[in-house]
Amino acid sequence: MPKATIVIFSGDLDKALSAFVIATGAAAMGWEVTMVFTFWGINIVRDEKKKAPLKKDFTSKMFEFLMPRGAKQLRLSKMHMFGIGTAMMKKRMKVKNVQGLREFIKDAKELGVKFLVCNLPMDIMGLQKEEFIDEVDDICNVSTYLKEAKDAELNLFI
Amino acid sequence: MPKATIVIFSGDLDKALSAFVIATGAAAMGWEVTMVFTFWGINIVRDEKKKAPLKKDFTSKMFEFLMPRGAKQLRLSKMHMFGIGTAMMKKRMKVKNVQGLREFIKDAKELGVKFLVCNLPMDIMGLQKEEFIDEVDDICNVSTYLKEAKDAELNLFI
Amino acid sequence: MPKATIVIFSGDLDKALSAFVIATGAAAMGWEVTMVFTFWGINIVRDEKKKAPLKKDFTSKMFEFLMPRGAKQLRLSKMHMFGIGTAMMKKRMKVKNVQGLREFIKDAKELGVKFLVCNLPMDIMGLQKEEFIDEVDDICNVSTYLKEAKDAELNLFI
Repeated sequence: MPKATIVIFSGDLDKALSAFVIATGAAAMGWEVTMVFTFWGINIVRDEKKKAPLKKDFTSKMFEFLMPRGAKQLRLSKMHMFGIGTAMMKKRMKVKNVQGLREFIKDAKELGVKFLVCNLPMDIMGLQKEEFIDEVDDICNVSTYLKEAKDAELNLFI
Repeated sequence: MPKATIVIFSGDLDKALSAFVIATGAAAMGWEVTMVFTFWGINIVRDEKKKAPLKKDFTSKMFEFLMPRGAKQLRLSKMHMFGIGTAMMKKRMKVKNVQGLREFIKDAKELGVKFLVCNLPMDIMGLQKEEFIDEVDDICNVSTYLKEAKDAELNLFI
Repeated sequence: MPKATIVIFSGDLDKALSAFVIATGAAAMGWEVTMVFTFWGINIVRDEKKKAPLKKDFTSKMFEFLMPRGAKQLRLSKMHMFGIGTAMMKKRMKVKNVQGLREFIKDAKELGVKFLVCNLPMDIMGLQKEEFIDEVDDICNVSTYLKEAKDAELNLFI
């Protein structure tokens, strides 16, 4: 069974969509897929409503406030145009029967894709694991990632 | 014969140049190279003049109008500076005898690099295959890509 | 011993940090790691103080002036916010005992990571090898890179 790892560094809607198209496509073909969310990419798996159990310091609150929270708040990396471009893209996907990012996340999970979040940027941004969507399997570090990547046929950084 | 796949997600001039330097370099060394144009990267292979045979709806026309059309209209991801930086870079490449993107595309083709365009973003942006430059070999989907990537020594996402 | 190559195209602070976390992590686990600095990524290894021995033409001086010079001048790709976001991130890393980019560079070198700089963008930007930090091992071209990548378990483009 071929293996793939995808590091998602970016928190842009368009890059996230590409990552999930590849991840779900591979999983549907029987590949073993691991997605590693790091840096801005962590915002993709932040839950819209869950609250952090521990009190946050000022900087952590700033990060929480300034960064997009979850799949719905992501923007395009280009042509965002104060929201018009991003809205146009989302509407268009609906018209063309292409599912949204939230549905891709659910599908990926059902197909057995593993979701890991990097501990270092979590720590820097003051995010706690209770703030993530249920689909997240585990927190990881760079050595977990490298062990997965070593045996994989496909390793992407998006 | 080693194999390489390069997914070109980005439509930025600088990233496109890097992708083509690697692709033509590998092909010149006898590698089997496949370039997969997706999302903004599709704009690299849009023909400047060709017309779509089928009538386009409003959103498709908007995408056609808002996105750069072909290699000549691409911009740098940084230092574009209202066109000054991009022009400076292009002039500089000429002075230093580095060929432009259009020449890289021709060279890649002569060296046997395969050009694939992803069907999903084509559909979303309302692009038709008759609008692409002659160098494009085929339309592909994620499973075509994964089959190529599985046996490749080098897989990049740019 | 597993091998990894990381092409650093980007000159953004956040992407550079991610690249060095992976590079030092892999080297610490005994991997043979090569980092290839290209395009904007070359700015990461520019020395803050060293002077070019050969006289520069106008365009080369413009590039020298407009691009960030070395690890300290890099900015975040998102949330730079006129310097506030980048400063917040740097301060935060200090508080959380995450080392800065300059320390990551030193560590990478001590762990045996190889630093290569691409000759093509150097030539275009008019940079001379005497302007780089001492950690840089050599200047390379695309064929050097491909030879390294061919045998590597992990190849990333960041």
